[in-house]
Amino acid sequence: MTAPQDVVPQPHLLSSLERMGAGRPAAVTLWFTGLPGAGKTTLAMHLEARLVRSGRPAYVLDGDNLRHGLCRGLGFSDEDRSENIRRTAEACRLFNDAGVIAVSALVSPLAAQRAMARDIIGPSRFFEIHVATPLAVCEQRDPKGLYRRARQGTLTGLTGVDGLYEAPARPDLRLDTSAGTIDDALISIEALLASQSNGRGSRRHGVP
Amino acid sequence: MTAPQDVVPQPHLLSSLERMGAGRPAAVTLWFTGLPGAGKTTLAMHLEARLVRSGRPAYVLDGDNLRHGLCRGLGFSDEDRSENIRRTAEACRLFNDAGVIAVSALVSPLAAQRAMARDIIGPSRFFEIHVATPLAVCEQRDPKGLYRRARQGTLTGLTGVDGLYEAPARPDLRLDTSAGTIDDALISIEALLASQSNGRGSRRHGVP
Repeated sequence: MTAPQDVVPQPHLLSSLERMGAGRPAAVTLWFTGLPGAGKTTLAMHLEARLVRSGRPAYVLDGDNLRHGLCRGLGFSDEDRSENIRRTAEACRLFNDAGVIAVSALVSPLAAQRAMARDIIGPSRFFEIHVATPLAVCEQRDPKGLYRRARQGTLTGLTGVDGLYEAPARPDLRLDTSAGTIDDALISIEALLASQSNGRGSRRHGVP
Repeated sequence: MTAPQDVVPQPHLLSSLERMGAGRPAAVTLWFTGLPGAGKTTLAMHLEARLVRSGRPAYVLDGDNLRHGLCRGLGFSDEDRSENIRRTAEACRLFNDAGVIAVSALVSPLAAQRAMARDIIGPSRFFEIHVATPLAVCEQRDPKGLYRRARQGTLTGLTGVDGLYEAPARPDLRLDTSAGTIDDALISIEALLASQSNGRGSRRHGVP
């Protein structure tokens, strides 16, 4: 059998600059993290639509969607969750390399998992957005009924209930979807993207 | 733990048509299959450059590159090769959904593996291109030294030597890179894409 070390990367013929068009900012990854029900997917889908409609290629890599495809067969053990996050980050990296803004929406509960994603994608392209909606609000929304089942004891390990969520210490942006509209949040994210395209001067934004 | 059946797909807000722009053809996958050394990656990289330079977003998903990222940890057993092809096809599907032409370059030796890829990507978006360079030419090129090692007996299972290659019975296009220039091949692929965008009238092209 061919050993993995025999596999040599094959260069693309296009430079990233040529792919994007001169003067356009490099494609980045906006990595949404937060509790179930915090609003990550809703925000991500609205952001994708807004970016594409303004002429910027973008694509949402949603945790639930990927579990039906690229990450099929993975469960919710720590090991499987890490592999789920690893593959998602690798997909984000491919999209960025192709000139497409990646918007990922996964709980990604642990700081080490998000650090892995940052390493894979590259620190200069990785923007961590903490969707910091309070647990009580997430639980009231409970769009998938997960909190109800966790409180009933028929679901264990739910992040925010009996599963650990390590909030990012220094996210690039922190948003609370219970304290503003979707448009408010999108405006904050656009400001983050604009600061990135102006040389990533100030990378910390939003509610401190 | 949350069981996989709890994971519900989340719809995107953009229709494929809106994403691509009215009147533009849907993004497709050009799936290159063929022996090691047949020229799949070389053709794919040139095709990507040509498409992007003409304003059509495209991206190469190369087997060797993916083994350093999305498919890291997979070996060359039948099971691992199938999983490698499955993940590559899922990535092609995501790129197509994002409006990007996917160009995959993997040996993908078995008809069943390519049928799986076709199922994942969707038959209307999947175009199979057999890079049908003769074995003797592939072996003479031997860009990675794999044939030499297989003949020396230090590598087993190499497709084309002691590993089975099932040539596609009815590829959308068949190319022999020893019998024409790269430009010749790209022109044939462009013709295939043009026929697709004109309603996929005639899907069989190239050397019979």
